[in-house]
Amino acid sequence: MVQLDDLDRAILRVLKEDARLTISEIAERLNRPESTIHFRIKKLQERNVIDKYTIVLGEDLQPRALAVVYIQAETPIIEDFLERYVKHIIKTLSLLPNVLAVARSGKGGVIALIGEESSEKLNRFVDETIRVLPTLKRVEVMHIDEFGKGKDLVGFLVNV
Amino acid sequence: MVQLDDLDRAILRVLKEDARLTISEIAERLNRPESTIHFRIKKLQERNVIDKYTIVLGEDLQPRALAVVYIQAETPIIEDFLERYVKHIIKTLSLLPNVLAVARSGKGGVIALIGEESSEKLNRFVDETIRVLPTLKRVEVMHIDEFGKGKDLVGFLVNV
Repeated sequence: MVQLDDLDRAILRVLKEDARLTISEIAERLNRPESTIHFRIKKLQERNVIDKYTIVLGEDLQPRALAVVYIQAETPIIEDFLERYVKHIIKTLSLLPNVLAVARSGKGGVIALIGEESSEKLNRFVDETIRVLPTLKRVEVMHIDEFGKGKDLVGFLVNV
Repeated sequence: MVQLDDLDRAILRVLKEDARLTISEIAERLNRPESTIHFRIKKLQERNVIDKYTIVLGEDLQPRALAVVYIQAETPIIEDFLERYVKHIIKTLSLLPNVLAVARSGKGGVIALIGEESSEKLNRFVDETIRVLPTLKRVEVMHIDEFGKGKDLVGFLVNV
């Protein structure tokens, strides 16, 4: 685990809120010399503590309906087939723009975050693209109705 | 829905990959005059298409074990109680640093993304913090084993 002190953490929190702030603005905000802030940020980048600078897109570009979908594939007789089949499902879903994230989950399981313009479109997508996949044991759709924490992840993940 | 043309989308894609690029670097990359890029980015910010500039934290700061946890509360006799109880669960979970995201999901449902140092710690957290909540009907833990898409969301959501 990487060692960070209070100043490092304070800098990271400030940059998480607004990565456009200049060195001198951050220095003023944290009441430290510019040279210190400059050095610390350089180090944080070099150590890959800061991996990337990016943007979050606004609500107009975000899908109106979101759901986490869990897919469980039927266990086949040949074990090796399950592995290949799950990889195939993940690859297929990855290519779709309304699939914001997808991951392997346990043996024969796939979990995906789906975003669509409306719940109708989302349900149709699940019915027409996911439920039709052959040899599934279970498809569970968990709609996301209102975030309590982490709402920004939608504007972070959405494709343009 | 906001109207974006190909240049707007190209600028957004470039900024998503690296929000530190200067106007002149973006202009060169997209083969357009700097004044055009400057004007477009200004507009994208004003229209809140770009909501925020932020950073993604590197792997060293990210939790090693992740899971999506779905919680279904028991439906009580008094309907109003369920609403308040779900709000209480969401608020409680929001305050915990290892809860990366949490949302309401359908009637009496809560869905959360949990991150911990190890699967043992994650399972312990689910057992000791979630399963002990009173009047739950169901708790389902879906471990995230390997991302096919959206891996960056962990470094985006992680707390410092």
